[in-house]
Amino acid sequence: MEILVVGSIAYDSVETPAGKRESQLGGSASYFSVSASYFTKVGMIGVIGSDFDTNDKLMFEEHDIDTSGLIHANGKTFRWSGAYMEDINNAVTIDTQLNVFSNFEPVLSDAHANAPYLFLANIDPKLQLKVLDSMNGRPNMVANDTMNLWIEIARPSLLELIRNVDSIFINEEEAKQLTGKDHLPDAANAILELGPESTVIKRGEYGASVFGDDFSFAAPAYPITRVVDPTGAGDCFAGGFMGYLASIGKKDQDTLRTAAIVGSTMASFACEDFGIDRIKNLTQIEIKDRFNRFIDLTRFKPLT
Amino acid sequence: MEILVVGSIAYDSVETPAGKRESQLGGSASYFSVSASYFTKVGMIGVIGSDFDTNDKLMFEEHDIDTSGLIHANGKTFRWSGAYMEDINNAVTIDTQLNVFSNFEPVLSDAHANAPYLFLANIDPKLQLKVLDSMNGRPNMVANDTMNLWIEIARPSLLELIRNVDSIFINEEEAKQLTGKDHLPDAANAILELGPESTVIKRGEYGASVFGDDFSFAAPAYPITRVVDPTGAGDCFAGGFMGYLASIGKKDQDTLRTAAIVGSTMASFACEDFGIDRIKNLTQIEIKDRFNRFIDLTRFKPLT
Repeated sequence: MEILVVGSIAYDSVETPAGKRESQLGGSASYFSVSASYFTKVGMIGVIGSDFDTNDKLMFEEHDIDTSGLIHANGKTFRWSGAYMEDINNAVTIDTQLNVFSNFEPVLSDAHANAPYLFLANIDPKLQLKVLDSMNGRPNMVANDTMNLWIEIARPSLLELIRNVDSIFINEEEAKQLTGKDHLPDAANAILELGPESTVIKRGEYGASVFGDDFSFAAPAYPITRVVDPTGAGDCFAGGFMGYLASIGKKDQDTLRTAAIVGSTMASFACEDFGIDRIKNLTQIEIKDRFNRFIDLTRFKPLT
Repeated sequence: MEILVVGSIAYDSVETPAGKRESQLGGSASYFSVSASYFTKVGMIGVIGSDFDTNDKLMFEEHDIDTSGLIHANGKTFRWSGAYMEDINNAVTIDTQLNVFSNFEPVLSDAHANAPYLFLANIDPKLQLKVLDSMNGRPNMVANDTMNLWIEIARPSLLELIRNVDSIFINEEEAKQLTGKDHLPDAANAILELGPESTVIKRGEYGASVFGDDFSFAAPAYPITRVVDPTGAGDCFAGGFMGYLASIGKKDQDTLRTAAIVGSTMASFACEDFGIDRIKNLTQIEIKDRFNRFIDLTRFKPLT
């Protein structure tokens, strides 16, 4: 296993201008794993309830995802419902039921603990720290995601975590909230001062920016003509990004740049259908073709 | 004269987190002209009041800008005051005094009417149409800007204008307002259906996107570390864009792409000081160096 991801596995009910879906497979670990599986071997750490659909587990396994880290708990799987009716780029949460997720305690096998790449998806930073501490030595690369809730209620743990990761993936608004800076380059620089070598700022329909000590890189979002459901796009971005890094085995500037375009490629697919419907059935040719469209989207000739 | 621009010449009072300025030279035609002057010979059509500072006119002339199209009217120059205290990317208008601008009637000399490039900055579309009609034949390229006000109160004239321009420069929000589409690629395609060969969507701190019939191009904003005053950045973008086009004498896809980066280059300078303070004193070396930073900001290697 090259990448270990810890995060949520959920059933989501989602309404967008394109339609409505009940109880579709979601959660950060699900999106991340399926996206990363096109590039490398992934293992998931998470918790599922007794209502978890065997077909969903089979789908993970068809993507060669190691599901041995999924705890089967008594109770219902984490459930979220939300709508994107006013603004396709911002979900309004209607309901959140933590269910079995409320008592989630990650447990790592030796195989999990030896993974050279670790992605700590958006969960309580105390759990993220616990997983990081459970690894056998320091992985080659550790990255995490987070959200406004943890910035508000778990700042000390979050800052401790950030000191110990190579990169943090964070939404633009949350980057500003975390640092108290209202201008993005300032916020990114303030994050780098907290410890990480790089930070990946997710800007939704505007793409993503990578900031390192001595470079910044702007990846646009692909202008897809119809956004069906943006749920999970950020996790698919992270999955493509980290999956690509793991497949290359490097984390230098040039690899991070290409990884951001791979991430944007996977995020663009994620939005094209509900839940994981689009990203679960991709071909390597489709991925490469979409990646190449980013070359066309960004190419320009130098000044003469 | 290669480019003719018609637009406002103003004295602005601006407050930003970086400070406060009273009665600084502003207006769309001022910003556009100074920015474009680094690439080509510009002529301005506009109106100024008896309070207009001779030094400001001299500054235009030092940039080899033809000011013979500036009408000297009795009364005060157009004045705007605004603040960017809550959000550096969005001005709150405190006061607008049209003054001499309220009776502005553009008058073109033969030299003006023969300009091969025409930029119709954000003024009443009836005046934009009047200037277009006053040209001697069809210029090589005509582009216009507009704003929410005209979309609301002068839609028929605006649509007539849009049918007759090569390109429209428009803010993202206004592109959505104009077309009734809430997803940018849809809005851009709807604009192209109104007539223009291309549309340039200005996205502020997120850069700009160019959409044509068979391509789209995403130009990022340069991540400058301190935004002092974003007033006029959009007009400086347009000035760089159109100035570059005029200097090259082409409007094919590749030229439009490079022009968008030139525009972004000039917009980034515009934000670095109050009013035109930064853009009035640029060197060609500074411009080329900033342009080249965009190459570094966007470069990535293909998938292997």
